[in-house]
Amino acid sequence: MPEQPTYIHIDPTFEKFKAYLNVLPPHVRIFILTDSNTQKFCWPILSKVSNRLDTAHLIEIPPGEKFKNQDSLLNIAAEMIRCSADKNCLLINLGGGVVCDIGGFAASIYKRGIKFIHVPTTLLAMLDASVGGKNGIDFAGYKNILGTIHFPENVFIYTPFLDTLPADETRNGMAEALKHALIADASYWDEIKQDPLKDPDLLIEQSIAIKSSIVIQDPLEKNIRKKLNAGHTIGHALESWKLENNHPVMHGQAVAAGLIIESYISKQLGYLSSKEFDEMEERIVHTFGKMDLTGYNAQDLIQRMQQDKKNSSGQISFSLIRHIGNASIDDHCEYSMIADALEYYAAT
Amino acid sequence: MPEQPTYIHIDPTFEKFKAYLNVLPPHVRIFILTDSNTQKFCWPILSKVSNRLDTAHLIEIPPGEKFKNQDSLLNIAAEMIRCSADKNCLLINLGGGVVCDIGGFAASIYKRGIKFIHVPTTLLAMLDASVGGKNGIDFAGYKNILGTIHFPENVFIYTPFLDTLPADETRNGMAEALKHALIADASYWDEIKQDPLKDPDLLIEQSIAIKSSIVIQDPLEKNIRKKLNAGHTIGHALESWKLENNHPVMHGQAVAAGLIIESYISKQLGYLSSKEFDEMEERIVHTFGKMDLTGYNAQDLIQRMQQDKKNSSGQISFSLIRHIGNASIDDHCEYSMIADALEYYAAT
Repeated sequence: MPEQPTYIHIDPTFEKFKAYLNVLPPHVRIFILTDSNTQKFCWPILSKVSNRLDTAHLIEIPPGEKFKNQDSLLNIAAEMIRCSADKNCLLINLGGGVVCDIGGFAASIYKRGIKFIHVPTTLLAMLDASVGGKNGIDFAGYKNILGTIHFPENVFIYTPFLDTLPADETRNGMAEALKHALIADASYWDEIKQDPLKDPDLLIEQSIAIKSSIVIQDPLEKNIRKKLNAGHTIGHALESWKLENNHPVMHGQAVAAGLIIESYISKQLGYLSSKEFDEMEERIVHTFGKMDLTGYNAQDLIQRMQQDKKNSSGQISFSLIRHIGNASIDDHCEYSMIADALEYYAAT
Repeated sequence: MPEQPTYIHIDPTFEKFKAYLNVLPPHVRIFILTDSNTQKFCWPILSKVSNRLDTAHLIEIPPGEKFKNQDSLLNIAAEMIRCSADKNCLLINLGGGVVCDIGGFAASIYKRGIKFIHVPTTLLAMLDASVGGKNGIDFAGYKNILGTIHFPENVFIYTPFLDTLPADETRNGMAEALKHALIADASYWDEIKQDPLKDPDLLIEQSIAIKSSIVIQDPLEKNIRKKLNAGHTIGHALESWKLENNHPVMHGQAVAAGLIIESYISKQLGYLSSKEFDEMEERIVHTFGKMDLTGYNAQDLIQRMQQDKKNSSGQISFSLIRHIGNASIDDHCEYSMIADALEYYAAT
């Protein structure tokens, strides 16, 4: 198994976080970004870790992907300015993927960059969003279209936070874990395909190890890192369509659908065997059910895919599962094939 | 004299820019950011350099510091999305400091970073804003408070553009050249103090060499790069106050005043000799005249200085001229001393 990166700590009693705060110079002012859920359920736990947090300043954004936008970003900056936050301050992002992504982005542009750490509170953020330095906001109907790549100083993962979450939220993170297995590790797939949550700590550890071993080889996503986008070309299109039509779905739900639809394309292109496709589809549907595509418009979805960040030369690029445990990058296909795959998923 | 950095080209006939475009792969789409002035006066010249520019897409922002804000930034991003700009596209910033700063910022966050080059059209942009990778926007009344440090692929400097400018604009750039001399090179100061514009090409070359030799030692401004902020702690405060009160001044004008006021503090602290202070003040006032401080409020200005990016631990930090050709970093003084220096400048 690839090794854990040194900046990420599984920290089941917050001992490591406490040690970090203990040596933080006294002039470093601390800001905590939360959404209203994590302020209510997680901050009371975190705030007890160290009295160094007694003077921390809380900044709250509304919860949900809908608020992962420029207004939230600028509100965070405005609040930090109002508090005269200097370049030496520290931003702690206490939340799920949205809080980590938007907080990381705010930290990377405030006064041209301040230190930040993630304390992820959802399974998705623990095993995916806090790893790899990507941050961003949605804009003009497109997911994560503005952002930077900027690594947190540290990530402290406290798995008891998972107990504060509804089951839906936890399932949300499983899609990325399944994706990690599908693109990189067939034996990990075999371990988790029956019940991804049998051992959450192991799930988190293995997913982080896979993702960070890929990121370290290609931090700026010139080649191999694109594998992590498997399921996301179509997944993001579905997610932004649903969001715009006021039927938001969880990111994991959209990625789960994206993985199946893209793998159908892979099968049609002769890459993925029918047997492996059937196994993947069965397991993913078993965990996530089917996403409702009623009223979808293939052309609209394809247009959204054209805005995907990994495209070049006007072509839609996919990272397709070739075998369970192995994905490619920069795959292309006819638009009619995408439409057929959407139709297959919608009809079955 | 320090050497020119390799990414910056003095390009008096655009031969180097043409050669760059000739080898640009055909799938790279080109976007040109201008303001309405550079679109009118500079684009007709640039567009003739190569037919590779025939298919370039123009994006225009309104001219002036007033529009160096989040709306312009987001409008640029929205226009690029509308044109389906992919991650491989190239943004060419054709303009002065505002266009280069905001275009560099847009390029650094669009799809988490695309390639960009600067074609600066003002003296200020040629010898200062295009060098060193800093970009940004003003926000909540503070100069450049949001941005990143992200280097352009190339800078092509075509000095004939200076002929398209009013004299005011050209004087604007001289303040930074004088600053470069004052913080780093007494002989350069002696060369340019009488008539900075005697040889503009040499002025640009020497200023770039000084600035980039500092930047290369400390790209993230942890120490020596702070010297480049000489005159800017007070200069930025004056500039944002004037802008907010609808009496905008040129950046160079504010920096010229800032250099004198901060140097008065340096003199009062016993660092700068009266003789050198008098020489500096006389030369700067000779070139720039005095800035009108009618109605200024020291407390308001000090509050603006407290938001300066190089501060830490709640103290206002200055980079003070100690001798002509030498500046310090992280200097501090009593607020009353700042008030006295402002009063000195306002009264004389």
